[in-house]
Amino acid sequence: MHRIDLLIEPEWLLAIEPDDAVLSGHAVAVDGGAIVAVLPAAQARERYDAAEHVRLPGHALLPGLVNSHVHNPMTLMRGIADDLPLMVWLKEHIWPAEARVLGPQFVRDGVELAIAEMLLGGTTCCSEHYFFPDAIADTYRKHGFRAMVGLPVIDFATPWAANPDQYFDKALTVHADLAGEPLLSTCFVPHAPYTVNDDSMRRLRELSEKLDLRVHMHVHETAQEVDESLQQYGQRPLARLQALGLINERLLAVHMTQLTSAEIELCASNKVTVIHCPESNLKLASGFCPVAQLQQAGVQPTLGTDGAASNNDLDMIGEMRSAGLLAKAVSGNPAAMPARQVLRMATLQGARALGMDGAIGSIEPGKRADLIAVDLSGVSTQPVYDPVSQLVYAASRDHVRQVWLDGRRRVRDGELVDMDVQDILERARTWHGRISAPAA
Amino acid sequence: MHRIDLLIEPEWLLAIEPDDAVLSGHAVAVDGGAIVAVLPAAQARERYDAAEHVRLPGHALLPGLVNSHVHNPMTLMRGIADDLPLMVWLKEHIWPAEARVLGPQFVRDGVELAIAEMLLGGTTCCSEHYFFPDAIADTYRKHGFRAMVGLPVIDFATPWAANPDQYFDKALTVHADLAGEPLLSTCFVPHAPYTVNDDSMRRLRELSEKLDLRVHMHVHETAQEVDESLQQYGQRPLARLQALGLINERLLAVHMTQLTSAEIELCASNKVTVIHCPESNLKLASGFCPVAQLQQAGVQPTLGTDGAASNNDLDMIGEMRSAGLLAKAVSGNPAAMPARQVLRMATLQGARALGMDGAIGSIEPGKRADLIAVDLSGVSTQPVYDPVSQLVYAASRDHVRQVWLDGRRRVRDGELVDMDVQDILERARTWHGRISAPAA
Repeated sequence: MHRIDLLIEPEWLLAIEPDDAVLSGHAVAVDGGAIVAVLPAAQARERYDAAEHVRLPGHALLPGLVNSHVHNPMTLMRGIADDLPLMVWLKEHIWPAEARVLGPQFVRDGVELAIAEMLLGGTTCCSEHYFFPDAIADTYRKHGFRAMVGLPVIDFATPWAANPDQYFDKALTVHADLAGEPLLSTCFVPHAPYTVNDDSMRRLRELSEKLDLRVHMHVHETAQEVDESLQQYGQRPLARLQALGLINERLLAVHMTQLTSAEIELCASNKVTVIHCPESNLKLASGFCPVAQLQQAGVQPTLGTDGAASNNDLDMIGEMRSAGLLAKAVSGNPAAMPARQVLRMATLQGARALGMDGAIGSIEPGKRADLIAVDLSGVSTQPVYDPVSQLVYAASRDHVRQVWLDGRRRVRDGELVDMDVQDILERARTWHGRISAPAA
Repeated sequence: MHRIDLLIEPEWLLAIEPDDAVLSGHAVAVDGGAIVAVLPAAQARERYDAAEHVRLPGHALLPGLVNSHVHNPMTLMRGIADDLPLMVWLKEHIWPAEARVLGPQFVRDGVELAIAEMLLGGTTCCSEHYFFPDAIADTYRKHGFRAMVGLPVIDFATPWAANPDQYFDKALTVHADLAGEPLLSTCFVPHAPYTVNDDSMRRLRELSEKLDLRVHMHVHETAQEVDESLQQYGQRPLARLQALGLINERLLAVHMTQLTSAEIELCASNKVTVIHCPESNLKLASGFCPVAQLQQAGVQPTLGTDGAASNNDLDMIGEMRSAGLLAKAVSGNPAAMPARQVLRMATLQGARALGMDGAIGSIEPGKRADLIAVDLSGVSTQPVYDPVSQLVYAASRDHVRQVWLDGRRRVRDGELVDMDVQDILERARTWHGRISAPAA
């Protein structure tokens, strides 16, 4: 018998590969943080001597979810203002609040609060888009969380950097500092076409090619953005990005609610990734991303919650539900975006987009053990005819009971194992006080 | 001091009336199943000697939610088939399954499963639309659940009745049997314009007027329904209902995704209630109900989950979220359907539509004590800037920790108090087996 760290026997194994198979009576063997085997449970019990043997009747085991677009420091501004037109929300609420608090400590505390929420809800990897990427990376590293840390580029000054030269210098420094980190990687996060000038765009193309880094950007989020680009540049933003050489397989374009058929084809033929944020798009009335059409055209959309100030949670199970439901109505086809497809978006397609599919996104030997167990045995999720359907259309984040990240248990029986929740909440309260205080 | 049964002190009191007020430092005094006072907590502690004194720091207390459109026996078919075109879903999956199992026992067991899920998620009242209303009513009565029980009318034979005469006879019998029931009332539930002929519609108009009963019907659910009505009757369904005298304040029209401006005005001026089921409409690709426009025009829309086979849960907090988000995108206005408005839809507007607003829908002296406490103190719902926003845009059903229905505790610390969950689940498993068995 082989000694291993962990053997998990769920009722249903949602391995994602091959072919979205749902396996019953199977077990996952984990050792040294890696998945070493997926095999029938009876065989597993004969072959392996596991230090920890976890039986999960009534549970589905699946890969940890990948939240491919977040602004996690903004979790501290969850619900600060809602139900407002976008520019009022930004100018009168978000930007003044950020001006009051934005700095490394705010960023650390916001990311910690987010990590707690993400783990409890079954998310084990995220792609981060915010300032102070050094403090962000440090916080993810401290908590052993898997993340792609964005290196910001934007035209105007912020507490992080004063001008494009500084943004790029600091980006390269943070990138170099994170080389060799097992759970962290980097990409560029230019904010959007309307906040990043052509010169910076050219530098991005050059550097992203030279360093093989992805470019994660808000693109075609609203009709207003598209109109203003036509006025300023005589082109739609995607056309401008194409002229600047940024339409390629390194582009992760977020939102993309304003797309022509030609633009969908452009993305497909250039292997552009589209990051779909349905709840944010709905909440801000940005428009509807034609995600079913994109999938049909060969684009591999991924899923993200966006920041907690425009959602207002980081719940990827809820986001899967919203994506699955909305795609049907938007395409006018109730067979569009079936549950298995949505689950793939939130796992393997997310992993691929971030260049992490060698490590995560499916439950296969050789990959890392980012695993979550969802309890389907209660009244809200019974009877079960199809566990994938149940996960996407009936389960909620509170059904996530066990979480492993890189083979290490992070959530046990619905509770965080190694995070000081009281301390996190106290710091959240302190920031709440500072943000709510009347302006001096 | 006055002796009372119960004094509740939440951190935030969302009383709905007056004016969507959110009160801090207030308490609710309950006695004999009724709310006797709402007042500052300090005064309450001096005035009342409560048998049970419940302090709920970090919690919002609000009226129990009203699910105004369900087919609860179908909870046993949750996830039986998804991601299919509507007629395939009905003809190849739902109707064959119903043929195999539909009868009083199936109905009882499905309703019990649903009651368990509804209570755990903070729903304390529903409006039911299914066959065997006698067995349905009996089950709600047995479990002390508040419900409007629909009396079905449909052209074709089912195990409940063979022809319109029988449907009407049985409806009147059930209606008479339920007279005087404190928690139950009745209404007619003709299925839809395309399954109920003109003659039955005329009988409905007459009887609903004579007995002052509401008419709760699926109307303008899909474009196909509207087209077929034009072909068969030369009129859109709403126009046909108007000619038949059914457009009035007794009509509860469900779905209503296909509306012209004139039809919106027709509903407003005739005080028609529109029951909005966003998740069902999305899942079946039925279309988008213009709910923000309806609210603006003076219609008072209500909220429902529809059956668990087309949602796939009975979660009213999730449904509020979907309604709030979707209305913004559909109307193109991020200020539309603010959180307070959505909460009102799910409480007082629902109660009013069912003629129950004298008893429920807001936390005011004289009303019954249908109350739920939602815990906002955890990482997913902190920090709190606005408890109503937090409830609608960040909380989920698992945050419902305490539920009282008619003053009686039904959920304590997230667990059902007086329902045999194991027995309910076992019966769900048995039905699952019968439904899944290969057809004989």
